[in-house]
Amino acid sequence: MAFEVHYRTATCGELTVEDVDREVVLSGWVNRRRDHGGLIFLDLRDRYGLTQVICDPERSGGAHKIASDVRSEYVVQVKGVVSRRLPGTENHQLETGEIEIVAQEMEILNASRTTPFPINSDAIQVDESLRLKYRYLDLRRSRLRDNIVLRHRIVKAMRDYLDERGFLEIETPILMKSTPEGARDYLVPSRLYDGEFYALPQSPQQLKQLLMVGGMDRYFQIARCFRDEDQRADRQPEFTQLDLEMSFVSEEDVMSLMEDMLIFLIEKTVPQKHIKARPFPRLSFKEAMDRYGTDHPDLRFDLPLIEISDLASAGTFGVFKSALAAQGMVKGIKVPGGASYTRKEVDELTEFARTLGAKGLVQLAIQSDGTLKSPLTKFMTAEEVQAIVNRLEGQPGDLLLFVADSVKVCNEVLFRLRVKLAERLKLIDPQEMALCWVVDFPLFHYDEDLQRYDAEHNPFSGMDETHIERLNSDPLNIRAKQYDIICNGYEVGGGSVRINVAELQRKIFSLMKMNDEQIHEQFGHMLEAFEYGAPPHGGIALGVDRLVMLFADEENIREVIAFPKTQSAQDLLMGAPSPVDEKQLTELHLQVRRQPQNQETRS
Amino acid sequence: MAFEVHYRTATCGELTVEDVDREVVLSGWVNRRRDHGGLIFLDLRDRYGLTQVICDPERSGGAHKIASDVRSEYVVQVKGVVSRRLPGTENHQLETGEIEIVAQEMEILNASRTTPFPINSDAIQVDESLRLKYRYLDLRRSRLRDNIVLRHRIVKAMRDYLDERGFLEIETPILMKSTPEGARDYLVPSRLYDGEFYALPQSPQQLKQLLMVGGMDRYFQIARCFRDEDQRADRQPEFTQLDLEMSFVSEEDVMSLMEDMLIFLIEKTVPQKHIKARPFPRLSFKEAMDRYGTDHPDLRFDLPLIEISDLASAGTFGVFKSALAAQGMVKGIKVPGGASYTRKEVDELTEFARTLGAKGLVQLAIQSDGTLKSPLTKFMTAEEVQAIVNRLEGQPGDLLLFVADSVKVCNEVLFRLRVKLAERLKLIDPQEMALCWVVDFPLFHYDEDLQRYDAEHNPFSGMDETHIERLNSDPLNIRAKQYDIICNGYEVGGGSVRINVAELQRKIFSLMKMNDEQIHEQFGHMLEAFEYGAPPHGGIALGVDRLVMLFADEENIREVIAFPKTQSAQDLLMGAPSPVDEKQLTELHLQVRRQPQNQETRS
Repeated sequence: MAFEVHYRTATCGELTVEDVDREVVLSGWVNRRRDHGGLIFLDLRDRYGLTQVICDPERSGGAHKIASDVRSEYVVQVKGVVSRRLPGTENHQLETGEIEIVAQEMEILNASRTTPFPINSDAIQVDESLRLKYRYLDLRRSRLRDNIVLRHRIVKAMRDYLDERGFLEIETPILMKSTPEGARDYLVPSRLYDGEFYALPQSPQQLKQLLMVGGMDRYFQIARCFRDEDQRADRQPEFTQLDLEMSFVSEEDVMSLMEDMLIFLIEKTVPQKHIKARPFPRLSFKEAMDRYGTDHPDLRFDLPLIEISDLASAGTFGVFKSALAAQGMVKGIKVPGGASYTRKEVDELTEFARTLGAKGLVQLAIQSDGTLKSPLTKFMTAEEVQAIVNRLEGQPGDLLLFVADSVKVCNEVLFRLRVKLAERLKLIDPQEMALCWVVDFPLFHYDEDLQRYDAEHNPFSGMDETHIERLNSDPLNIRAKQYDIICNGYEVGGGSVRINVAELQRKIFSLMKMNDEQIHEQFGHMLEAFEYGAPPHGGIALGVDRLVMLFADEENIREVIAFPKTQSAQDLLMGAPSPVDEKQLTELHLQVRRQPQNQETRS
Repeated sequence: MAFEVHYRTATCGELTVEDVDREVVLSGWVNRRRDHGGLIFLDLRDRYGLTQVICDPERSGGAHKIASDVRSEYVVQVKGVVSRRLPGTENHQLETGEIEIVAQEMEILNASRTTPFPINSDAIQVDESLRLKYRYLDLRRSRLRDNIVLRHRIVKAMRDYLDERGFLEIETPILMKSTPEGARDYLVPSRLYDGEFYALPQSPQQLKQLLMVGGMDRYFQIARCFRDEDQRADRQPEFTQLDLEMSFVSEEDVMSLMEDMLIFLIEKTVPQKHIKARPFPRLSFKEAMDRYGTDHPDLRFDLPLIEISDLASAGTFGVFKSALAAQGMVKGIKVPGGASYTRKEVDELTEFARTLGAKGLVQLAIQSDGTLKSPLTKFMTAEEVQAIVNRLEGQPGDLLLFVADSVKVCNEVLFRLRVKLAERLKLIDPQEMALCWVVDFPLFHYDEDLQRYDAEHNPFSGMDETHIERLNSDPLNIRAKQYDIICNGYEVGGGSVRINVAELQRKIFSLMKMNDEQIHEQFGHMLEAFEYGAPPHGGIALGVDRLVMLFADEENIREVIAFPKTQSAQDLLMGAPSPVDEKQLTELHLQVRRQPQNQETRS
């Protein structure tokens, strides 16, 4: 450009009345152009803000002519003078809203075709696949831009916090060893060793423990992890976690550090939010399941689930009786003010419960005059029904809803019904962050499909020292030294104090029905490491994508990832996955087995 | 532990005479145990330092008994009182060297087998494959520990520096699209789309440019990159780079930012080092090749290469004549004081040159009395020989060495000979950091094998605006807007101001003999993005492993990576790559083609 070596002397977000009369050069995108009484107004946009540029035929010379050629999303450079806007024309929404640039010279740095969706408005709903294909355009819109900036700030704050406390960020390999245990690995064929593969890490779990054996004392990493699982709304083939491990610590040490860090992150990066309770409440796994039907309860609202199995055994109500006879339970929830719901509204809730596997919802409405409206009244005495009302602390105007089924179905249905009711009752403050710990997990559950014990968290979790002998007698009643951190109903992290004794670790693997050869093949290096002075250690991993999603008030992690994949694991921008040259496959000693029946799945 | 919930109240690196009489709890590894006159001395070690613990039979009670059982690398917890060491027994090398802990209680937290190599001495040479297999033990030794700590500090300082200047760290995907152009990709088979693959990124080049199109303005990432190439000493299958891109910048903007950042990093993390010249010298590609025979010269010493082709054409010396007749050159180097080298020493240098492809070295010794000893004197006049001596500024006592060969061989041989001579002449100050820029690269070179033009840096590099027309007439004479940063003879980074005009980018691809279909298939998304208001932009990538290696005075990047692979791409600790279950391959629609002749390569 002839008149200026530098493309800009200021960004589009920084000029104010302090700068009036300064000669400046700006570069940016044309967010909007308006022609008004012979004048041309351009809103020039960059990551930092918007600045209004005014071109008039007298003062702006050639710039006025050029401005008449530009369209939305053209990249232009403007030289001009900062001026105070006329009184009454200020825009107090903008940092730069009291000034404008009177253009003297202008150059088009690059043109733009008409974009497939408008950049200057977030209000317009755009099909997500179009947004993903043109991600570079979507990133110009304020929603994604703000999310990406927030993500940077959150992760930077994590690093600052941990660095100050002596943690070392240590990179662990992406080309790892496949371990069939756990989720499905992504594999990477080796060219040098035919028939052999690397695997992308599901987490740096083993290596972070080996770093503790290596004396690194306090480790963290913002680590990329990979799982080749079928995707849910908030899953991606690759995701990012804050992975952390510490030596010479108890559960309390890890939890109190993380609690302090999360408070720091919220106060620093989203000060408009408020934390519901400090210190974070701690629920046992059992309390969480009993009261909320889930181990990741949303504590922004109360609406507890209340079991009435003991009361439900009275009377002759077949629905209750048969559930209890089948080792099931009866559990209910109170809907304040729900007695006034229309039949249609109640039917909707019932239908919702059915889609989750319930046979139906048993209703009990406490009308404003105190009379009860419920099928129960036909099968139970007034006292028996009243006992149930009392258990749920029902008041006139409330609706009580019950599920009678297996423990699993009752919890699953009522957990989700509770959230749905909270939304309907508008009990959720969008600026509230309700964090809690869930603790006292069992070390094992019994996997009926695999016909063996399986680790509740991962096979490296330590256990209550007084429970070690139960490994032989009662494995399902061992308390793990495990903790999950929950925010607004999302599990945002979990961890444990680990096993650091080879024999104990070996015992866990054998309870998981691994034989000695499998143990040696997959975990021999861990067991060997534990023989060389492994310190007590523990750690945690937080889901960075999910945490940023919650901080950003988004409902899907794709909104906080610069280049996400679709739910079917495709990159619509680059076009991945894609076929490769036969030569590449030959070098990798591979041949594709085409499966005709699968061809149709792609479309 | 009975007497203390917390494992420690201090680390092994922090107690001083200020703490005398404090009761403390320490945990760590037994670095060394000495028994001395009934007393037992333990040096307790953690990441932070060493603290001496003294157990005496009177004051330490049961701790003395336990201390007599511990061995090197046992993990122990000690409770005791900080005491001043007796005068004359202080260790001024240690931060904690004026105090010791008089043990009161002790517990063995974990035992250790005898380690395969000693942890408490870096002096002992250990076979590298043993170090890699027991990496968790090697990490306890001070050399690796210090390197890992330094790496953390360097990378943290990079992030702080860039964050302060408005850069956003943005994560780009690891599961990418394969692009055959460039080095060989690592591939990841897709389970959902049979016969299709992701590729691990060789660099986030395209995505960082798309982030600029997306208005992110200033991006960086500490990015993991992958190349499936045969390994050299300082290559790894995966490596880490500081990847950076900026919008609205010239070459000067990127270079001056990086120069300032590198100075900041050195001053902050290795203050004992000194930077040879500021601002960093800038050499054109041509100057670097002429004067040093390489585009990544070591400027800690001078020893320039000097061409004498014009002078060598005089006389009748066949070696010179035939090289010049074959379009070659004659180039020399002066070895100060080299006239006194023994025949054996000169023969060694000649042999070294031969292994690099030279036919030999032509010698010219200027003896202390000024007489010349050289084969040249037989084939040239005294004046002709003297002209050569003058060109190289030869002084009595110097040895001049010449290579007559193709330009490529002359440069390659003399580049390496120059470094070897500098080592022999002890011209290298190990604390010196000689940084320089190499600029004015040609945009293209002609690849004889591929019979086409190939990008010198990458196909996205921009070019001098005044040279654009040469794309049609003279592609080899286009100056690229490219810059490499060199430190002590290593290329530590490189980048360019990019093309942001679709038509120009398309022209580059077609000069590289890609047809329209290939261009569309591989780079269609880039060309399309450039149609939507792509700003001027440029960037750079720095090799983090190599930079840390230089800061840490190491000669191999494996010494600054926590879990490196061998030169043959194996992970000796975890055992990767490895065979996988047939079930995994079936899910990925793959079959291994065994190649019997390759089986032997593994051993």
